[in-house]
Amino acid sequence: MIKIEHIGIAVKNLENSNQLFAKLFNQSPYKLEMVASEGVSTSFFQIGDNKIELLEATNEESPIYKFIEKKGEGIHHIAFDVKDIQQEMERLKNEGFILLNEIPKKGADNKLVCFLHPKTTNGVLIELCQEILEA
Amino acid sequence: MIKIEHIGIAVKNLENSNQLFAKLFNQSPYKLEMVASEGVSTSFFQIGDNKIELLEATNEESPIYKFIEKKGEGIHHIAFDVKDIQQEMERLKNEGFILLNEIPKKGADNKLVCFLHPKTTNGVLIELCQEILEA
Repeated sequence: MIKIEHIGIAVKNLENSNQLFAKLFNQSPYKLEMVASEGVSTSFFQIGDNKIELLEATNEESPIYKFIEKKGEGIHHIAFDVKDIQQEMERLKNEGFILLNEIPKKGADNKLVCFLHPKTTNGVLIELCQEILEA
Repeated sequence: MIKIEHIGIAVKNLENSNQLFAKLFNQSPYKLEMVASEGVSTSFFQIGDNKIELLEATNEESPIYKFIEKKGEGIHHIAFDVKDIQQEMERLKNEGFILLNEIPKKGADNKLVCFLHPKTTNGVLIELCQEILEA
């Protein structure tokens, strides 16, 4: 794993939270993005070489809706940049971690992503991500 | 804020979790440290320019003991490196954030630290930290 790519934070209202985190970080989000397949509206803040992603559910089937129902607003996942997502998924599977998707899927911010089941990672939802290179 | 300094993860058993995260990160923790004042035993992993800190409670008064009782194992806090902790504490206080300590205190890993109350930060426990420079 190369670095922490971003930390995902589940919020009820993206607009309000964008204002709150803009005060906290003393800067505005540099990007807003909808990820329809995940049922989320997101915003990104850059902190040095890392990002903070805020996530608001856009429907009640969204994992973020369910997370907030169960645990309230707060840190949802940690994403790590990896060089070769296929190879890292294979390595982690062999180490006994449970992958939530067997094939890398398209995530926000032009990434291929894979999530690990938190029951195998001390309750921490971990995302692997690899930048999609232009053809 | 300069960067994500570390992410703190609350664990029940540091020895078991060190083994688990060593598999996850494909490396061993580079440091183990007790912080008696906080009632925690910690370990640190380096991922690029960021760190992951695992925290086990050493007594039932420890904030980590109470966190796990209430929420289970998982992500406990995000720490951001700041250049001047006093100045950043002042700025955030003026923005309406609640500081959990009014004076920077000594944390793990040779840092001065201050925590922000999660009720003012969308349920996220945020730590500011500044490296203690040698005299």
